[in-house]
Amino acid sequence: MTQYPRPLGRLVGELSKLPGIGMKTAQRLAFHILSLTDEEAESLSSAITEAKHAMKYCSVCGNLTDRDPCAICSDQGRRHDVICVVESPQDVMAMERIKEYNGQYHVLNGVISPMDGIGPEDINLRQLIVRLQQNSEIQEVILATNPNIEGEATAMYIARLLKPSGIKVTRIAHGLPVGGDLEYADEVTLLKAVEGRTVL
Amino acid sequence: MTQYPRPLGRLVGELSKLPGIGMKTAQRLAFHILSLTDEEAESLSSAITEAKHAMKYCSVCGNLTDRDPCAICSDQGRRHDVICVVESPQDVMAMERIKEYNGQYHVLNGVISPMDGIGPEDINLRQLIVRLQQNSEIQEVILATNPNIEGEATAMYIARLLKPSGIKVTRIAHGLPVGGDLEYADEVTLLKAVEGRTVL
Repeated sequence: MTQYPRPLGRLVGELSKLPGIGMKTAQRLAFHILSLTDEEAESLSSAITEAKHAMKYCSVCGNLTDRDPCAICSDQGRRHDVICVVESPQDVMAMERIKEYNGQYHVLNGVISPMDGIGPEDINLRQLIVRLQQNSEIQEVILATNPNIEGEATAMYIARLLKPSGIKVTRIAHGLPVGGDLEYADEVTLLKAVEGRTVL
Repeated sequence: MTQYPRPLGRLVGELSKLPGIGMKTAQRLAFHILSLTDEEAESLSSAITEAKHAMKYCSVCGNLTDRDPCAICSDQGRRHDVICVVESPQDVMAMERIKEYNGQYHVLNGVISPMDGIGPEDINLRQLIVRLQQNSEIQEVILATNPNIEGEATAMYIARLLKPSGIKVTRIAHGLPVGGDLEYADEVTLLKAVEGRTVL
């Protein structure tokens, strides 16, 4: 382990805590930061504290936002009869990128994962029920959790939870990614793709 | 381009200026930072400003340090008859990792590169001459600049500059990296390896 001067060591240590940043990358970033002007370094530093202080969770949908309710919840031009349930604010961004969906969101900020001790009460789920009860105009809930074990389990749980309400609950399709290769697709994906085939 | 709330957008923008951090990674890091506790985010932020303020260049050797002269320059247990010239503080760390070299360093904090408009007067070279003039005990200058065009040119320039002084000037060896493969070595490296062969 290289002996850094203390302030440099602390910076490398802090940077290496970030996801996907190992010691080597942290050192490279730290030396880059030291090569910045005082203003540039200050700007990076203050962006961190400012974002951390200004960004909150929307009290309606749970998305990360700098105002409450968030820009999507307060947009009167969007449809209010459909809610898309996603795991994270990043997923909202992914959905927005397709420029097709124009409804509301509900961000769980987590996923049910008994292995990690995360149950239905640990994610932003209760608020979804409250929204559905208070909002009679909602016709459909689209479950867009990730297509992995936890995401599937969470989707199944929510679907069963909403069953009595009579609201239409849908799940995004499984299948081969566009540009993908049949030969290299795993069996489960291919099976789902065949099961979900559509009439042309 | 995704529309971020302003504080998040600023953080993503600042992070994406870091070397090797693209927009995708910057977004991932930004969301991670938002998921930190206030204390953790503050700690990261302050590590940046603190390192930037505390770390200076050693007035003797040019290395990055939190005290002047740096830990290596003020270490009385090290040899004072040899100076190893490197391009950057990172190179000092690389040299220290081999735990073999016990002499002084001189950090150029740059490299002569006419293409980028960087001449001998733009790097920490004059100070090396001053050190050699003031220090009659120095017997050898090891040129450990990078084995690329700029590094070679800088080494050649310094070697010629020091020629009149009569001090022994050496260059680190070129050759195949340990664990490397003769078959995949480029011709220049292999040629250098053959030229630099040693008697067993």
